[in-house]
Order: sequence, then structure tokens, then C-alpha cells
Amino acid sequence: MPREVSRSLSEPASGARPRLSEPPRLGRQHAIVHAFRQALRGSPVGAAPPGILIEGPKLLGEALRSRLRIEAVLFTPSGWQQQGPRLGAQLSKHVSIGLVEDAVLRASVDVETPAGVAALARLPQIRLEDFWPETEPSPGLVVVAAGVQDPGNLGTLLRVAEAFGAQGSVSPKGGASPWRPKTIRASAGALFRLPALDGVEPDRWLEFCRSRQARLIASTPRSGRPPEEMDWSGRIALLVGSEGTGLPRALHRAAEPVSLPMRPQAESLNAGVAGAILLYLAGRHRNSL
Amino acid sequence: MPREVSRSLSEPASGARPRLSEPPRLGRQHAIVHAFRQALRGSPVGAAPPGILIEGPKLLGEALRSRLRIEAVLFTPSGWQQQGPRLGAQLSKHVSIGLVEDAVLRASVDVETPAGVAALARLPQIRLEDFWPETEPSPGLVVVAAGVQDPGNLGTLLRVAEAFGAQGSVSPKGGASPWRPKTIRASAGALFRLPALDGVEPDRWLEFCRSRQARLIASTPRSGRPPEEMDWSGRIALLVGSEGTGLPRALHRAAEPVSLPMRPQAESLNAGVAGAILLYLAGRHRNSL
Repeated sequence: MPREVSRSLSEPASGARPRLSEPPRLGRQHAIVHAFRQALRGSPVGAAPPGILIEGPKLLGEALRSRLRIEAVLFTPSGWQQQGPRLGAQLSKHVSIGLVEDAVLRASVDVETPAGVAALARLPQIRLEDFWPETEPSPGLVVVAAGVQDPGNLGTLLRVAEAFGAQGSVSPKGGASPWRPKTIRASAGALFRLPALDGVEPDRWLEFCRSRQARLIASTPRSGRPPEEMDWSGRIALLVGSEGTGLPRALHRAAEPVSLPMRPQAESLNAGVAGAILLYLAGRHRNSL
Repeated sequence: MPREVSRSLSEPASGARPRLSEPPRLGRQHAIVHAFRQALRGSPVGAAPPGILIEGPKLLGEALRSRLRIEAVLFTPSGWQQQGPRLGAQLSKHVSIGLVEDAVLRASVDVETPAGVAALARLPQIRLEDFWPETEPSPGLVVVAAGVQDPGNLGTLLRVAEAFGAQGSVSPKGGASPWRPKTIRASAGALFRLPALDGVEPDRWLEFCRSRQARLIASTPRSGRPPEEMDWSGRIALLVGSEGTGLPRALHRAAEPVSLPMRPQAESLNAGVAGAILLYLAGRHRNSL
């Protein structure tokens, strides 16, 4: 968001946010509203998304409990009546707050009924080197979500990853981004807590895993070993999704294949379901649950 | 579908279906087209759905490989060009076939782009007594899908149930029906093979489980025993979904609670994901995988 916009909604220079009066009304063309729409539309391929769009009071509450840095919050008039004082009191004084008409908020978010409030947060600055720091003997399992195309399924997978003790997630370049609004919603807040690195070059990731002595294990429809026979200890990058569904060939070739046994007549499971089961089993084998 | 409709598309009285000529063109008001729309809309609460709507050539192929009884198939002109001869050759001569305009097929199915073909099948006649027959010592795990509200998630769960060796599924009265088009699509054909009983009275189910010495195990967010400590042998009804999300209280009270261990800060998993993991673990413990 442009700096001048943040300043245009003047806030006290220091101290806690005072008791909130009604925020200024912002029109459809206001730079803050524009920034929401940009986050909604997403970024051109290869560019970092302009921000994280957070829809509704429940998700905003999750964001406030995380270390995510919220930059702006838009309320509808009725949303302000219902949630303004409670949510506003939790916002830092550096957060820009505005009131917009219902139709303007609807056009700035991904859901039909945005429940009166939406927020824009800064994208967390995560680097490859934040996984398995060289100076720490941390084991850690990182999920590499490459074969999960549906944004909702990706969000569910990241929620599961957090629940079962994964240390973070990596999305290879060219695959689905974790920062789409539907993915954020489906993650139920997990994306605000779990480090998620987007747009990673597969070759760079492979090299990084090798430099950190991390093993790659790939969820594979039928030809891998059963998960109960795998060694799940140490540093692991768990690749979810098979080649052809977005998992780059270089990663797949470098990985040990694991497959869930299943009835022969059954269709193979979708990548998200297989990933969830493997994340659970890995968590139990690693004693992190 | 009314008998006279089936007859109106006259077919040879006996022998295999002859080489297919172009089927008759049916208007929007034709009784067969009407039957498709009825199946799409579903049935009034408590009534059996009028038929199973099968959308697209892939799902129709799955249906043809199952024991499902297909009653009518509608093609668009281009769908007929592409798939007609191949699919038509697999249809029994008792199946009514018609051509409809693209817009008519779109209005009769649940997807935007129905891929040129849709079919209507008879609802399988399944009775409570088909589970765990009294005269057989069959063990068998039946999934009771009560807390899965989203039709897509229900379909995914039934697909997982089949993959991991469940014997069938039961949907208690008042919950989501397995026969909605989105559920059928998400099941990827599993619903054509796995016996699925809809609209079962909870008390009747409970009584039936007792009469068959089947144990009830309920997936529960946090207060149950870990799945690895459960006894998964014998006849089991696995209840997926918690009370308040559609699982009747009587069933819940009668069940042994099982919970997946997870990180304390995580939101509880959605019922479908928890169900999938439990179905896998149960299948492995029961040596049915």
C-alpha cells in the first residue's frame, strides 16, 4: 500500500489506539480500496502478491492472534456497528481503518457475503534459509504442495500440515499460490502461523534440501513403499501431488516414493487426502504429536 | 421415469443393441428431459430421489462398469459425434437415448460444461439388512457420514471409504444425501460400487447395529482415544462428524469416541479429513489393505 495513503488516515503519533470514533468513509477509488482489489486479483505470474486478503471477523481474529502485520481494515457501516469497537481495540495505531459501502466491500473480496469486515496484511517475509536453520539441529518436516491445484484443497492441506506438526510449506514456482483468498479461508488461519514460501524454483529447493541434509519423500499413487515402512525421522520435505499434476520432474526423481495401500479397484485418491494421511502418519512416527 | 416414455423411443425387442443411428431429438418438455431435471433438483425431504444423475463420459464409463441400472442417456449433437458410438455400444437396449440442444443439457445437469453427455440411473435398492447379513460371519466396516455437510466433501469421503475397504455407507435422516450430483462427481464413481443407504432413522440404525453385534466408533474433535489404541476388529460403524454438525445425539452417545492427536494451537480438522485418516488407519489395523 502506498505510504501516503496510510498517512492520509491520520492517527495519533504515539501511544495505544484511543477509543475509536467512526472511521472515515472511503470511496471506490480510494487507494486503500484499490489495494484490496489488487490483493483480490492476485499478482502477475512470478511477482509477489501485493498483500494478504483476510475476509470476515473470524479470520481477522486469527490474524490478530498471529504475528501477521495487518496494514488496513475496511468495515461496512453495519460491520462497524457490530464488530468495530471490539476488533478496532485490538488493532495497532499503524493500521489504516476505513468505512465503505456494502457493494464496495463485496467488490473487494472473494466471498458473496463478506460479513462486514475485511483486512489487508503484509506478506510475511520468509526466506528459503528460514527452513532448517544451518546453526540449529532442528529436524522439521516441510510440506511441498505442488500437486494440489484446487485453492480450497491447498488451504485444507496447510491446515492439516499445521495440525500435525509440520514446520512450514513450500509452493514451487508455477503451482497454486497459498495466498489466494480461497486458500487462506480454507486454511482457517493456519497460513497466518505456518511459514509458507511461495514461488520457489524447484532446482533451488532441491539444492537447498541437499545442503541441509533433508530427505525428499514424494506421495505417489501406487508404486511407492507403504508409509509404515518409511523412515520418517530427521529433516524431511514431503512432496504432495504426483508428476503431471504440478510436481516438477526434478523433485520427483530425487524423492523416495511413498504410496498408501488401497483396494485395487479404487480410483487413486486426490492429492490433498493422500497428503493429509501422510502428514498424520509422519507426525505420529516422528513423535511430534 | 414413466414407462411410456421409455417405450416411446422404440428399440428392437430383443438381441444386442444394433449399430446406432442418430437418436431422436428431444425438446425441453420431453418427459425424459423432465426426469433429468427432477433428478437434478433432488427430492422433497424424506422422499427417495427420483434417480441418479451421471454427468460426463468419465463418470458414465464408471457407471457402465458398475451394476448400476442406467435408464436414459442424453447427448448434445457434438457429444453424440464424439462419444455416441463408443458409449452407445455399451448401453443395453432398454436404455432410452436422446439428443438435446446444448442449452437443454446444461439446464438438466449440475455443471457448467457437461461434456456432451449425461445419464440417469435407477437408485440402487439397498436395505438396512444388506449390511452385515445375519447368515454370514462378515466383519465389515460401514461409514456413517452424518457430520459432513458439504456435498463435495461427502463424495470425497465415500471415495476414500471405498479405497480403504469399507463395506458401505449410511447417511442418517436429515443429513446430506449421497445422491446429489456434486457428491456423485466427487465420489469419482465410488458411489456406483459402494452400497450407500440414505435417510436412515438414527434409532433404527442403532438398534440394527446392536442386533448385528456391530460396535459404533465416533470421530470426535479432541476428547477421544487415539486411533492406534482402538480395537478396530469385527463389525464397526464409524461415525464421521461430531454432534452439532449433523450427527444425531443418540448415535454419538452410543459410540466409543476416537480423536486424532494434533497440535494444541491448531483448529480442529474438518470432518472429512479426520474421517479419511481414520478410514485408512482402520483399514490397516483390520488388514483389509
